[in-house]
Amino acid sequence: MKLTPSESWALALRNANEAIGLSDPNPRVGCVITAPDGRLLASGHTQRAGSAHAEVSALRAAQAAGHTVRGGTAWVTLEPCSHHGRTPPCCDALVEAGVAHVMVALQDPNPLVAGHGIGRLRAAGIDVTVLAPGDPVAIAARELNIGFLSRMLRQRPWVRLKIAASLDGRTALDNGLSQWITGDAARTDGHAYRKRAGAVLTGIGTVIDDDPRLDVRLVDTVLQPCRVVVDSKLDIALDARILSPPGERLVYTASALARHAAPKVRELAEQGVSVLACANADGKVDLGAMLDDLARREINELHVEAGSKLSGSFVRAGLVDEFLVYLAPLMLGAGREMARFGPLTALTEGLALEFVSVERVGADLRLIARPPGRADF
Amino acid sequence: MKLTPSESWALALRNANEAIGLSDPNPRVGCVITAPDGRLLASGHTQRAGSAHAEVSALRAAQAAGHTVRGGTAWVTLEPCSHHGRTPPCCDALVEAGVAHVMVALQDPNPLVAGHGIGRLRAAGIDVTVLAPGDPVAIAARELNIGFLSRMLRQRPWVRLKIAASLDGRTALDNGLSQWITGDAARTDGHAYRKRAGAVLTGIGTVIDDDPRLDVRLVDTVLQPCRVVVDSKLDIALDARILSPPGERLVYTASALARHAAPKVRELAEQGVSVLACANADGKVDLGAMLDDLARREINELHVEAGSKLSGSFVRAGLVDEFLVYLAPLMLGAGREMARFGPLTALTEGLALEFVSVERVGADLRLIARPPGRADF
Repeated sequence: MKLTPSESWALALRNANEAIGLSDPNPRVGCVITAPDGRLLASGHTQRAGSAHAEVSALRAAQAAGHTVRGGTAWVTLEPCSHHGRTPPCCDALVEAGVAHVMVALQDPNPLVAGHGIGRLRAAGIDVTVLAPGDPVAIAARELNIGFLSRMLRQRPWVRLKIAASLDGRTALDNGLSQWITGDAARTDGHAYRKRAGAVLTGIGTVIDDDPRLDVRLVDTVLQPCRVVVDSKLDIALDARILSPPGERLVYTASALARHAAPKVRELAEQGVSVLACANADGKVDLGAMLDDLARREINELHVEAGSKLSGSFVRAGLVDEFLVYLAPLMLGAGREMARFGPLTALTEGLALEFVSVERVGADLRLIARPPGRADF
Repeated sequence: MKLTPSESWALALRNANEAIGLSDPNPRVGCVITAPDGRLLASGHTQRAGSAHAEVSALRAAQAAGHTVRGGTAWVTLEPCSHHGRTPPCCDALVEAGVAHVMVALQDPNPLVAGHGIGRLRAAGIDVTVLAPGDPVAIAARELNIGFLSRMLRQRPWVRLKIAASLDGRTALDNGLSQWITGDAARTDGHAYRKRAGAVLTGIGTVIDDDPRLDVRLVDTVLQPCRVVVDSKLDIALDARILSPPGERLVYTASALARHAAPKVRELAEQGVSVLACANADGKVDLGAMLDDLARREINELHVEAGSKLSGSFVRAGLVDEFLVYLAPLMLGAGREMARFGPLTALTEGLALEFVSVERVGADLRLIARPPGRADF
């Protein structure tokens, strides 16, 4: 089968997508290898951290199929790595295999290594083409790794606030009932977004009210995201479902250093739950410092699924990079709001966003909105 | 220029659209006449009430261009009328002109006259085809006349509740500020919806707070909709802008018969404003009875642009046929809700809708939602 360049890119991106829920904290990268006449030889994607990157996966697949890749072209959605990390550099593997051309959708975001891989390939006599940043393939490769880029360039995870609400903006009735405002398709889609995330975060209020697990169940995944609770007073019950394995479990608190908290911290540690002290001057969890810590823990995308109070705190602190809103075709009247903040005194004090995507998901809508320029790092 | 059948229908629908803001309370109808070989001879649409209907407009245009329509085909978006109303029956005009075929997108909705026009044409030897109700052209012709159909078949206007809100469902800040949450394009689009309406309605709260005109300014129109205020206690100021000409102005009140109200009613009458008593048992305006009265006044589409209190009353009474919601990419936190009702105790008590249209309008979204089956009359 011969592939056109756009078919090669489409296949490379499909491969990169397969790395969701698998390659974290490594980026999601796809690689396609074509023969000099354009025939598809092999494709691959980033495996689990410490295992093969996309290029090596594809080269191995070609080898397994008995294909030589000499003189061929590698289509990679991210600049091949040039450093010894958990695996040897992909550049060397491409050079050894004898490919003649490497097409790169996106440069490595890390300014310390950007261009090194490309330079190394060129030094070995390989013809390298890098797509323009505005190319749709480059944009798709970037969006797929928005969290990886955010962590590399901002030392913060990409913070996605997920909200499920009625058309009139209610996330629950006054009595707390919220299951279910949106339909099955939206809930499944929400799990696909949890799967993308290195960590899923909620607040102690939601843990007490709903006792959610916040793991990925409705879609298949290899990795389960780390689960995080913001719990200023360390009120969490030891048997809260969000604290069950598998996966890492973190509780950020403002009171872990208080003497009365010590026994609970010990008990939680015994179940494998880390309690992290991170207080601000008001005796609440310092959300910004928490994000710094989550980036140090290699969280690329942080999925926040909280009540209106904690969601409001994230909004007020200017920490939301993306709103993922499922709107149900339903009017509920009085009830809980999407994010509790204000009252403002002027409309210009509101948080201005732009809609980057609007899709129907079952009977509901999925709206993705970001502060303008927020992804420009 | 020869037209295919689908081009003929598209042109007929475009013509029908031209009758918006012009033909009320008559339906919006377009007519295209093609020669036996498919050449376009003429097109037309319903004019002002009392003037030519679509078929006669098109026949006159053909005549003015020196074309004979004998043996040709008329494509009409609504069954030609067979009765003497303000104008002679269109059937007779088509028969006299000698067209051989009439294509009808939609039967007359009035059960008392449905099929009579078609029967009359067939009796005269004309070949008549009626589209299936599920045909996209039939659906478009029906949607364009949803208010006319509603008035004919339910003796009620089609009630469209327009809401402009932030993503988190706020229509104003707590201090009442709401100008402007949505952008220019959405406001212009909102005026296009006012133009469709036979009447634009608001409540006394909005009149006192914002003193709006609620006429059609941002798009061209021939007719201005009637303007209606729901004002239970007849609190309206004589110089409220909504009471200025042109167009009919109605104030529905629960207290017009009270002795103290009499002088105000007289003064309003002197400015051409009709005050209509329409109280329910709670001393408020009976919204259902008001809708009956508006239908008697030949209002096809009623455009409601009210505050959260009156919008909530419409929702609670089950009187909203369609929500026209402009959502701005903006988070406002505390503020006024879309419709004040509840608190409900179960999610199933909410008003279930379905999204019938989702469009971007400038930076905002326009969502149209209806209770399922609501348009099945």
